[in-house]
Parts: sequence; C-alpha cells; structure tokens
Amino acid sequence: MTHTNLTFKTDGAGLYQITREVSAYVRHSHPTDVGLLTLFIQHTSASLLIQENADPEVQTDLQNFFHRLVPPSDDPSMSYLTHTYEGPDDMPAHIKASLLPTHLSIPVIDGALALGQWQGIYLFEHRTLPHTRHVVLHLT
Amino acid sequence: MTHTNLTFKTDGAGLYQITREVSAYVRHSHPTDVGLLTLFIQHTSASLLIQENADPEVQTDLQNFFHRLVPPSDDPSMSYLTHTYEGPDDMPAHIKASLLPTHLSIPVIDGALALGQWQGIYLFEHRTLPHTRHVVLHLT
Amino acid sequence: MTHTNLTFKTDGAGLYQITREVSAYVRHSHPTDVGLLTLFIQHTSASLLIQENADPEVQTDLQNFFHRLVPPSDDPSMSYLTHTYEGPDDMPAHIKASLLPTHLSIPVIDGALALGQWQGIYLFEHRTLPHTRHVVLHLT
Repeated sequence: MTHTNLTFKTDGAGLYQITREVSAYVRHSHPTDVGLLTLFIQHTSASLLIQENADPEVQTDLQNFFHRLVPPSDDPSMSYLTHTYEGPDDMPAHIKASLLPTHLSIPVIDGALALGQWQGIYLFEHRTLPHTRHVVLHLT
Repeated sequence: MTHTNLTFKTDGAGLYQITREVSAYVRHSHPTDVGLLTLFIQHTSASLLIQENADPEVQTDLQNFFHRLVPPSDDPSMSYLTHTYEGPDDMPAHIKASLLPTHLSIPVIDGALALGQWQGIYLFEHRTLPHTRHVVLHLT
Repeated sequence: MTHTNLTFKTDGAGLYQITREVSAYVRHSHPTDVGLLTLFIQHTSASLLIQENADPEVQTDLQNFFHRLVPPSDDPSMSYLTHTYEGPDDMPAHIKASLLPTHLSIPVIDGALALGQWQGIYLFEHRTLPHTRHVVLHLT
C-alpha cells in the first residue's frame, strides 16, 4: 500500500481534468500488478467525477445542469437557505458536493487504470473564487 | 487480489439486476475470508446502483424520477444543452451517470457480500438503444 | 484486513454525525499504518455522507434541499410514484438513497482518517419514523 497527495489550483467553477496526473502516479508506483486506486478529495465544496473525456461540450453541459439544479443562494428559488454568509456560491457548493462523488475507486490492471475508452477523471470545482484543492491518492 | 470483467447486454433505459452474477464471482473467488469487492463500470452513460430488490415498482419509480429530473435534450427545459448530436438521450445519460455511482464498494464477510436484506446490485442503463456494458470486479 | 458493524438509532429524517464512532474504530484497529476504510450502510432508505462539520446550518440546508428535490409522495408533483404503501416518505427515501452515497472510502494515513479540516462523516436518515441502522466498517 502506498499513498500520495496531489494539489490542484482551480480558477472558478467547472471541471478540471486530472487523468494525466493520476495516471502518472499509478504508473510510477505500481507498474505491473493488479490493484485498486482510491482518490479522496479533502473538501466539501468540490468533487471528483469520472466523465466523458472526448467532447468539451459535455463538461459545459454538466456544469450548466448542476448550476440550474442548485442555483446560487441569492436566486429567489433558494431563499430557504440559511448558510449564506460566505457568499451565494457557498451553500450550493456544499449541495453539489453531496450530489457528486467525494471519492473514486478505480481498479488497476496490468499496472494501468482500468478506465473505459471515454472515461476521464475530473476535479469538479463548485466555488467561484480560486482555490487550492488537495486530493489523497491511495493505492493498494 | 483478483479481478474479472463481466459483460451485460442492455435493451433500453432502466435498472437491470446483476446481484446473482456478482455474488457468483465472489463465491467462486474468495469463499471464506474478509474482503472488499469493488465494481467499476467502464462507461459514462450507464451507472451502478444498490437499491431495493423486493418491489419492482421501486425500480420503475426510480427510473421515472431520473427521467423527470433530467429530461431528454429535445424537451424545452433542456434547450441549454449543446452536446446533442448523438440524440436526445445522450447528454441526459451523461448527467444521470454523474448523479449515480460509477463504482460500488461492498465488504465481503464470511465469503459473501455484506448486503442488507433488501439490497440488490443494479446496472442502471441510461441510453435508449441496446448497449453492451463492461463492469470490472476487483476483489481484495 | 478487519471489519466491524456499528449500529445507530435515528429519530427522524436528518444528518447524524458519526465521525467520532468511526474514528474510534480506526484508532483502535490500525494505529500506525497506511490503510483504507470503507463504510457501507446496509439500507436503501438511508445514506452515508461526508460534509461540512462546522456550521449546523449546512446540515439543515442540505436536508431542506433534498426534501424539495424529492418531496413526499403525497405532494402533487410526485403523483407518478407507485411505491407508496409504506407511507409518503418511503419512495422519496429510496430516491434520496440513490442520489447520496451508500458507501464511503476514506484513506487512513499515520493511523488516522485522512479527512480534510472541515469534513465530518454523517449518516443521512431519509425516513420519518425511528430506525435502527447498520453500517459495516471494513479496514484494509
């Protein structure tokens, strides 16, 4: 078993692909065996997600869907929210982080992540301002 | 550690129970010990889900809920979607696959999956046309 | 590898923090090594969730969001639901349990859960009446 911490800087809400960084860690740590990689994001206002890596429109559409499902807290439809003092993107970020994964587990086969052809790994930032995000990678 | 790949054919959107196939793999691989089974679906338009296995109405209601939460892209409420060239069920399938699990981890105790009495394992297909779906099982 | 079962009594819908009980198990089981803790709830009408542990308003807002996203089945907007004989909170509980995690995997580093500063572990009860909930903890 081994682990590492990866740090990513985000600059606004949206999906940031991290497949390359994660794959590099697996390749350098565990080149030949069967294993299991777990990613864990140490935040409650950003998520991890496996999604289509081919057409960037998918990422835009995903972000827009979640923005409509969970509008900012100054939207009249969200007037019931009470945790608003960190700004209108704060509580919606927590809600999105409940709807989307905090952790991912991906099998490792022949030393590589067993992702499907169209699967990429993303960090999904829900806050508006720049943030530094910490992701723990655990490989067994 | 061991792993396998299971293939399932789907014939339209809905929940397909796969508990029997998954349990058989565990029983044949690891009959007496404590372990952890991870299932990982190698697609971004279908999901895995643990849900009630008793009343089929639960599965119908679940499918209807997600169809209303994420209507086809030719529904007027979804006119903001841009990734539409593969058909009206394409981008909604990606969205549903973000809201529902891509992977499941289930403890194995005394050689069997530690599922609750009413829990079944499902493949949740989000596309309309028939598809072949690949699920990696990793047992540690 | 080791495992245990924790039992929690809930008294109505809402988030119940279980970080202390889970951390105590890890501390007593595995005090110095790198590992991975998996929590698995053996029910389809309650969830596990990692969320902000500082401001209780976050938990209230989360509960209200999910109550509005998935209203009771006697709400006119939910008239399409068919699995209603166990009461108006029954099928919505299954839906919420599909949208929220059934299992969590958290890396263990230096003998402690690698949670972020603001992350707590919650049992999210979706039913109205008191329930006894079983959570399997698996530590590798």
